[in-house]
Amino acid sequence: MDNKGTTSYNGSSSKLNNEDSSVQLFNLNDSSEFNSNSNSKLQSIQSLNESASSSIAIYGYDQIKQKKTKKRVTAAFGKRAAYENFTTIDWNHDFAKDRNRKNKVKKRKTLKGRLYLIYDACQSWILVILIGMVTGLLAAFIAISSDWISDIKEGHCKSGFYLNRKFCCWGNPGSQCSDWEQWSNFFNINSSFLKKIINLGMYTLIACLATFIAAYLVREYAPYSAGSGIPEVKTILGGFVIKDFLGIHTLIMKCIGLSLSVGAGLSVGKEGPLVHVGCCVGNLCSRLFSKFNNNSARRREALSAASAAGVSVAFGAPIGAVLFSLEEVSYYFPMKTLWRSFLSALVGALTLQLMNPFRSGKVVLFQVAYTRIWHIFELPIYILLGAIGGLYGAFFIKMNMKVVRLRKFSWLKKYPIQEVFIVTLITSIVSYGFLFLRVSMTQLISNLFRECSELESDFGGLCKKSQLKSTIFMLLIALILKIIMTIFTFGIRVPAGIFVPSLAVGALIGRIVGILMQLWQESHPDLWLFSSCNPDVQCVTPGVYAFIGAAAALGGVTRMTVSTTVIMFELTGSLSYVLPVMVTVMVSKWVGDAFDKDSIYDALIDLNQYPFLDNKREYYSDAIVSDIMTKEDNIIALPAIGLTLNDIENILQEYQYQGFPIINNTYDKLLIGYIGRSELRYTIDQASELENVDGLVQCYFTKKSPDAYGINDPTKPRRYLDLRPWIDATPYTITPNYKVVKVLEIFKKIGLRHVIVVKRGKLVGILNKKDLLRYLSTLKDNKIK
Amino acid sequence: MDNKGTTSYNGSSSKLNNEDSSVQLFNLNDSSEFNSNSNSKLQSIQSLNESASSSIAIYGYDQIKQKKTKKRVTAAFGKRAAYENFTTIDWNHDFAKDRNRKNKVKKRKTLKGRLYLIYDACQSWILVILIGMVTGLLAAFIAISSDWISDIKEGHCKSGFYLNRKFCCWGNPGSQCSDWEQWSNFFNINSSFLKKIINLGMYTLIACLATFIAAYLVREYAPYSAGSGIPEVKTILGGFVIKDFLGIHTLIMKCIGLSLSVGAGLSVGKEGPLVHVGCCVGNLCSRLFSKFNNNSARRREALSAASAAGVSVAFGAPIGAVLFSLEEVSYYFPMKTLWRSFLSALVGALTLQLMNPFRSGKVVLFQVAYTRIWHIFELPIYILLGAIGGLYGAFFIKMNMKVVRLRKFSWLKKYPIQEVFIVTLITSIVSYGFLFLRVSMTQLISNLFRECSELESDFGGLCKKSQLKSTIFMLLIALILKIIMTIFTFGIRVPAGIFVPSLAVGALIGRIVGILMQLWQESHPDLWLFSSCNPDVQCVTPGVYAFIGAAAALGGVTRMTVSTTVIMFELTGSLSYVLPVMVTVMVSKWVGDAFDKDSIYDALIDLNQYPFLDNKREYYSDAIVSDIMTKEDNIIALPAIGLTLNDIENILQEYQYQGFPIINNTYDKLLIGYIGRSELRYTIDQASELENVDGLVQCYFTKKSPDAYGINDPTKPRRYLDLRPWIDATPYTITPNYKVVKVLEIFKKIGLRHVIVVKRGKLVGILNKKDLLRYLSTLKDNKIK
Repeated sequence: MDNKGTTSYNGSSSKLNNEDSSVQLFNLNDSSEFNSNSNSKLQSIQSLNESASSSIAIYGYDQIKQKKTKKRVTAAFGKRAAYENFTTIDWNHDFAKDRNRKNKVKKRKTLKGRLYLIYDACQSWILVILIGMVTGLLAAFIAISSDWISDIKEGHCKSGFYLNRKFCCWGNPGSQCSDWEQWSNFFNINSSFLKKIINLGMYTLIACLATFIAAYLVREYAPYSAGSGIPEVKTILGGFVIKDFLGIHTLIMKCIGLSLSVGAGLSVGKEGPLVHVGCCVGNLCSRLFSKFNNNSARRREALSAASAAGVSVAFGAPIGAVLFSLEEVSYYFPMKTLWRSFLSALVGALTLQLMNPFRSGKVVLFQVAYTRIWHIFELPIYILLGAIGGLYGAFFIKMNMKVVRLRKFSWLKKYPIQEVFIVTLITSIVSYGFLFLRVSMTQLISNLFRECSELESDFGGLCKKSQLKSTIFMLLIALILKIIMTIFTFGIRVPAGIFVPSLAVGALIGRIVGILMQLWQESHPDLWLFSSCNPDVQCVTPGVYAFIGAAAALGGVTRMTVSTTVIMFELTGSLSYVLPVMVTVMVSKWVGDAFDKDSIYDALIDLNQYPFLDNKREYYSDAIVSDIMTKEDNIIALPAIGLTLNDIENILQEYQYQGFPIINNTYDKLLIGYIGRSELRYTIDQASELENVDGLVQCYFTKKSPDAYGINDPTKPRRYLDLRPWIDATPYTITPNYKVVKVLEIFKKIGLRHVIVVKRGKLVGILNKKDLLRYLSTLKDNKIK
Repeated sequence: MDNKGTTSYNGSSSKLNNEDSSVQLFNLNDSSEFNSNSNSKLQSIQSLNESASSSIAIYGYDQIKQKKTKKRVTAAFGKRAAYENFTTIDWNHDFAKDRNRKNKVKKRKTLKGRLYLIYDACQSWILVILIGMVTGLLAAFIAISSDWISDIKEGHCKSGFYLNRKFCCWGNPGSQCSDWEQWSNFFNINSSFLKKIINLGMYTLIACLATFIAAYLVREYAPYSAGSGIPEVKTILGGFVIKDFLGIHTLIMKCIGLSLSVGAGLSVGKEGPLVHVGCCVGNLCSRLFSKFNNNSARRREALSAASAAGVSVAFGAPIGAVLFSLEEVSYYFPMKTLWRSFLSALVGALTLQLMNPFRSGKVVLFQVAYTRIWHIFELPIYILLGAIGGLYGAFFIKMNMKVVRLRKFSWLKKYPIQEVFIVTLITSIVSYGFLFLRVSMTQLISNLFRECSELESDFGGLCKKSQLKSTIFMLLIALILKIIMTIFTFGIRVPAGIFVPSLAVGALIGRIVGILMQLWQESHPDLWLFSSCNPDVQCVTPGVYAFIGAAAALGGVTRMTVSTTVIMFELTGSLSYVLPVMVTVMVSKWVGDAFDKDSIYDALIDLNQYPFLDNKREYYSDAIVSDIMTKEDNIIALPAIGLTLNDIENILQEYQYQGFPIINNTYDKLLIGYIGRSELRYTIDQASELENVDGLVQCYFTKKSPDAYGINDPTKPRRYLDLRPWIDATPYTITPNYKVVKVLEIFKKIGLRHVIVVKRGKLVGILNKKDLLRYLSTLKDNKIK
């Protein structure tokens, strides 16, 4: 239509315009991998739809391409600039890039090519195995060092300060261990009151010192390593770029800080942050493999597997880990990623088992074997526990968000280290008095889960029939303190997770309910309700209630279902309570969702306003794209011809847009393609280094050469820069009357960064992911909770 | 552009053209739910982009809409025609339809509206609970009846012919049961040789009779109920429509046929077909809920949950079932579906447990508790087992495909019942002689999995130390026979699954390897390899090898990883072997994939050429859309104005296309929208019943009224049919230079049925899913295996 009859293509050896021999055409295309739409087939097929003259011109174009090969840039273009920080990646573009790369690999028919093909196919498997192994090693390190710190709060080992109590007393456990010395003995204190004071003092001092160091290191060297990291990992996997969040500094500080904060006895877990650790490892390892290093979308697939490895080593729960990655962390989760996560989790767990940091030969954290089966009359209580867990989850999220908001927006934010110090001080002093709080949380949970017959020694009176009532009271106080401490602790500026504290709270609730049930059943054994009980044996197992309560609380806080269930089984190694746990977790999720659909991680993402397009949320709106798009008059569109290198340089400096649509001219505004900022930047940077290229060289993006427009002075040699190979000739386009919700689906499913709005080929606007997110945030109240 | 200044809209009460009062405008839009793009906001916003006159005309249009309300069709349009048989559904369209429906529900602010909103939100949960319950009941029925048939092959119960042996002998099991009578005793035979003959005869006779009935019923009443059903379910969940495949007849015949074929002792399982049963239940139950009944895409979400319920009741493995639905069956699996599948699987398992068909109180099929842990030296053997399982899988698929192809394309296809009869005859006679084959497969597997110390009585010499070598020989023969029988049986025209036969084959292989290992270790206890063995106790547990072998074979045949692993644990209730099983399954998948990436189900989908767009497969091609699309000159595009009702009727009768693009006129061919065949059919059928409508009435699809074109004779009253509300004004469009692989991603991810190819607004072609599938099948050799 608009191409017909106006002009023909340029071409130095074209039969039509031979006088063009002075044209210098810098073709920057080194068949670089990233542009999927710029091959000659495309060009020639397009030409069939054009007028006859232009198809001849295309021939000329090919000839130029061949002839000028030697003159073309031979510099190693290889990599292009990566995404800039705090921008969104274009999944679709990256997948296309990867397809293109693979396609090229497949075409090599030489032996070397074939070998490379095999290596290429294996790369991802090698990568995930590597990730699993490194993550396993780091988890072992963190476990050992946090154990050591936890122990030296109470005393030290005479045969070597670097030994924790277990290894110090290896061979003669219990109270006979003489090598382990309490601090009061070390300081030669005799008065029993002073002893207690000294012990408490050292306990508090070491704890405060540890968290102080952690907070200081975090602030100075890797601010990103604070907190759980899961919300940010979710955002990154959703396609956002946060430089250094998965870098080497963050990894080191996260590992050290985690050992310190967990060892100090704060109400935090190391399990959630291990996801962040895993992802750091994943990110760093993927730099070794070009397939992943040069492709942000593919790298995120590796990160999904890495997050599975993290959970796997955290709990020794490889299958639950895969599901966690699927249900909570990942954004795109194709089958391939499932298998890779599976392998990564497996290797992580195997490594940890071989390392055997606890010398127990087990990966399972809270090994427990329930000998009794459940009774139907217990089901309503399980459901009740589920409801309590859901309520706790909703309450915790609400309260913690208040604290986090306070921390973020009030004067408090200036004193992160002081805050950590004070929290540790209070936690230490409070915890020291209570057995339930003084022991490490994993020990607490493990003891609460056990049946009384399995406990080696009675733990805090859990099994002393005579004092069960006072035990309930103690559990209740521990529960309340634990909840308060967790609310204030989660979010302080040290590495800290929420998994294990949630389990602990749930286990406390569950054990209380369990003991109450046990007391009730034992005082009314003849009640019709308990008719299914066997009269001779214990009917109600409080440990099971603790187990179920823990699942409920974890479900309430994280709103995961399948993964919570599986993790609980793998944690305990017991499958006999599948159905009750499933019921509980489902109820917990429902009750929690009734208050707010957001899990703790989603709430943090919201609070921090990360640009995360939640797959789970549904929006309803009648708006159409033209209501919310960036209108054409606010867009910098590049005309296909007429811009000099200087013009483009100026545009790039003046406007920070992530890319520019290309139009045929500023009057018709027919869309020709799209060029990303980084491609453009890179190309013109390379071009400026070429001989004979100055700022006045003409750039063009269209099939028609600049000659067609008669812009140049025919007396001077004309010099053009051919930017065609760098444009995306088939960007996603929609029409302005698309509904926003329909476009939202496309953004979610295809992973777009932007979509160009055209009307009959004419550019009328652009819709960016950020425009969309901004609009959606106004719909928040309208969303289906 | 083309709308400017030419004309204004018609409108009987429009301020502009009041002389138009004779215009009868039949607006068939009853705000029916299915068109997401036809609300007045859209119109008015569009009008802002148009000239002033047309926005006034829109106002006139609205007035008509209000004024003519009473004259408009009041018939209950409610439902529109569903998709036609053997067509592909348009996910995207259906999701839009559902969003629209929800949007409308949310807007009702009355109490009734709010209550309905709650009901609407609960519908899906109620549905999946219902599906779980019904599926659980049916599974219990199938289990009981197949058990009964299996038992009466050997004898009958004197106290009631309807009792199986277990219930007949309830209270006094073992050989003392006097109520259970062998057939030889029933016929009063004394000669021991004749006894054997009679018993074998009855065994064979009843088996043949059972499968004959099954095959006859299947052929006469529900041909779709034959086979496993999983390939078809996969295809349906992928968006294809196969009427009656999930209907009531299929369900009934599947249940009956399954009981008969499994009871007859064929080498088939009932577990896979239970997925089909679950999906039938899901399909039938979703008819009760308008949300699902009227929306094919939403119904498929319910079917995903139903398939999880099916596997859950098949194995008593609710979590594995959810993963099975995710990994193998489902196409789209959003988080919501995950939670629903979880609930559905849970309810199914709970129902089955409450029904307690085996009176064992357990849902777990092969309860086993291994007391020993594994040794590092066993890992290579597990990996070897994984490799054997993968090899077996590849071999089985290849061989079975040969048999299926023979059955499908040779003379054999005319005699399905005869074939079933002969297979049963041979199976019965062969099996009768071998204990390992005579017992039901679940019994066989269960015994092979057990540790010797757990077996109540020795089973076929598995544990007799003295005769282990001859036992290996027997196992080997059983293995070979089992493989041959399974290859020939899977695919015959009775309901038949492949899960349990695969497990059985794998368990046989594993037990053989396990016994060999045991013999080796016991004969060389001092070998360095076995240094980790404790000298006093048994070191190698052959039952574990059987368990691992079964996982490997199942993995090899189905190529599932995570779900195989989880199902294996839930089957046995034992978590101690997580890591070895994961390793084995991964190896099995790799080895199998090295031969062919297709699982047995994918191979069957390929063989039957179902239109299934495999999510897992990757294609590489340089082709662009214009190479493979249906070109514009082969498309029936409707001009927006100028067609009479008769014309449309003729077009519908002449062309069987699933829909028609609408263009402004046959010269410019600017795309205006798209109308589906069923919408068009339905609309004009409804219109023809209106008063004053005959075949000559003008239909129009554009904002401009027919008057604008001056087509009608001004002296006669003009009559138009306004089809605007029925068109999709924002169909997905692409340009012809899109790469095919890029479009493939869009098809997969968004679930399109077709995409319209435009160039600067002008229609140039259509790309259907079938065009795409046809092209991809030519690429098969090119695919990355």
